[in-house]
Amino acid sequence: MINEKRRKALQKEIEKRGLQGALLVSPENIYYLTGAPFLAGRPDKLLYFDCNCNGSLIVNDLDYEETCAFAEGVEIVKTNRGERSTERLKMIAGKTLGIEENFLSLSLYEILGKDFELKPLEGVVDKMREIKDSDEVERIESSQRATERALNKASGTFKGGMTELEIASEIEYNMRREGAVSYAYDSIVASGARAVYPHGNPTNKKVGEGEGVVIDIGSRVNGYCSDMTRTLFFGKPNKEMEKVYQSVLESQESAIEAARNGITGKDLDGVARESLSKSGYSEYFVHGLGHGVGIAVHEGPTVNSQGKEALVPGNVITIEPGVYIPNIGAVRIEDMLLIDGNGSRNLTKFTKELLVF
Amino acid sequence: MINEKRRKALQKEIEKRGLQGALLVSPENIYYLTGAPFLAGRPDKLLYFDCNCNGSLIVNDLDYEETCAFAEGVEIVKTNRGERSTERLKMIAGKTLGIEENFLSLSLYEILGKDFELKPLEGVVDKMREIKDSDEVERIESSQRATERALNKASGTFKGGMTELEIASEIEYNMRREGAVSYAYDSIVASGARAVYPHGNPTNKKVGEGEGVVIDIGSRVNGYCSDMTRTLFFGKPNKEMEKVYQSVLESQESAIEAARNGITGKDLDGVARESLSKSGYSEYFVHGLGHGVGIAVHEGPTVNSQGKEALVPGNVITIEPGVYIPNIGAVRIEDMLLIDGNGSRNLTKFTKELLVF
Repeated sequence: MINEKRRKALQKEIEKRGLQGALLVSPENIYYLTGAPFLAGRPDKLLYFDCNCNGSLIVNDLDYEETCAFAEGVEIVKTNRGERSTERLKMIAGKTLGIEENFLSLSLYEILGKDFELKPLEGVVDKMREIKDSDEVERIESSQRATERALNKASGTFKGGMTELEIASEIEYNMRREGAVSYAYDSIVASGARAVYPHGNPTNKKVGEGEGVVIDIGSRVNGYCSDMTRTLFFGKPNKEMEKVYQSVLESQESAIEAARNGITGKDLDGVARESLSKSGYSEYFVHGLGHGVGIAVHEGPTVNSQGKEALVPGNVITIEPGVYIPNIGAVRIEDMLLIDGNGSRNLTKFTKELLVF
Repeated sequence: MINEKRRKALQKEIEKRGLQGALLVSPENIYYLTGAPFLAGRPDKLLYFDCNCNGSLIVNDLDYEETCAFAEGVEIVKTNRGERSTERLKMIAGKTLGIEENFLSLSLYEILGKDFELKPLEGVVDKMREIKDSDEVERIESSQRATERALNKASGTFKGGMTELEIASEIEYNMRREGAVSYAYDSIVASGARAVYPHGNPTNKKVGEGEGVVIDIGSRVNGYCSDMTRTLFFGKPNKEMEKVYQSVLESQESAIEAARNGITGKDLDGVARESLSKSGYSEYFVHGLGHGVGIAVHEGPTVNSQGKEALVPGNVITIEPGVYIPNIGAVRIEDMLLIDGNGSRNLTKFTKELLVF
């Protein structure tokens, strides 16, 4: 079992730190170690591992049936009505406990601190998740294929005068039909001058003639996210936006070319930025180059100016430079890469030609 | 300005605690106090308030344009590339700082603890958010109307043999077209025996003849969430499921009847549970009765067995009993109520008749 290998790796980290056990709260980490399903943004389970690799997954009534159906390799413990999961934990867990310091809230830390001696796990499970095995890569690719088929089908309806919300409705309709069990994140559909908001949710704004539309979409399939951005034009863009498009594309391709085992996230970010500086747009590239993708849509490794660690084979990262010119418009182009022994493999197949609808 | 009133209320709490200022990190709390847009689940700004009610919203390059366009009443401070927002905070903030102990991660607490004396704000902003003003109620109602129009339109396509994903695609397509700028949460569409998973994302499962489909959906419009569940049948249900439906509906209506100023969340939960015990189903009601709804889809007040505080006018809560019979099926029915001077007003208009498609 894949999950068992992961649990053994965690056990080693527990031993190394001289702890009696580890407490996991992050739904993504719990999923990684047990397969227990979760809703994004809703931490609702506690996973305890002792130093012999015995796991107990503490769930409430609500989640019991679903957890039993999908989680494996751990004992599933149901709390009584009105009993807090931390109370149950006290009955099970050893005194010295590793915790997820980047995830645990201060309140929960203080509650646990009354009964346990808590030590940071220093992100060990998050670090394990940064290196994908072939099964994980396959899931990410399935998710990405679903998104691509959906954008392809939806684009058959694209025409001048549509609103951003109408565009989103067509894309998401097809994402669901292509198998997206949920969305990896809130879809971004932002057109014309609104596209300078890199996080722009769709609105009732109609796409104007010649405007670009930044479309940033992701599915979740078999527990794994995908993440893609394309900038499509509704009517022929003007010369400036065409130049911006080509500059962003060149920047993106230079970073894809440079992505390989051993380069740091910071240096890779620098490659894309350097390319944009040649065309004079680097000041408008207002965010980092990318991020890791997996069970969470944003996870390690760090692929921006803070990324001091070298990329390694098994990393799945996005490469998504963008140029955002206030009051004018924006272009962002994003693919997902798998770092491998030969540089990288592009997991995104959707065309990057400048498309005009 | 509504936000200014809120900021003044926070100022009083800062003074009361003898602090020099407060640091807010929760995107929902920052939105509540400034109108700054956010993506759910992505804390990316720091909001500092000093004891004179002067606010500084620290954002990165990426969010600067959008924040300037929408946030009001605070100074917007842009970090330099590579500068951490906590570094900028040090240049601005007083020494004794109130923090959101339920939201702040242990890591961030420890980083801040090196430079500040940190005191819990004891959820003051979250508590303020529990009492909605008329503008907020209107936004929640707009959001709920969008969801209702969407379910109504989508239901025109419902027929035997559809998959859960197809049902979700039709509903969400119409939610977007009715103005949902995003979804309040991952839609739940779970049919037949799968409906016993209260958090069941839609799958490729076809809805079988006579099966119930639990549909739990919410839009976000003008920053506010709505939340509704209906259980629809694809083909006539059997006698048992019909009985379950009527029992859940009676339970829900008894709780709606009892919802008023002064009752605790725990007692209200008890009303629904007591009703279900008459029909013998209370052991299958495996979760709490409801929760508050607003900028977050799950917020205060607490409406379950842990809810020791009395409801007050201005609370917007869900009432959503459910019965989940393993290997058989499930029914959940959910409305949103506004607690007012006369008991409550039901903000949900969609029919609760047993509908068969």
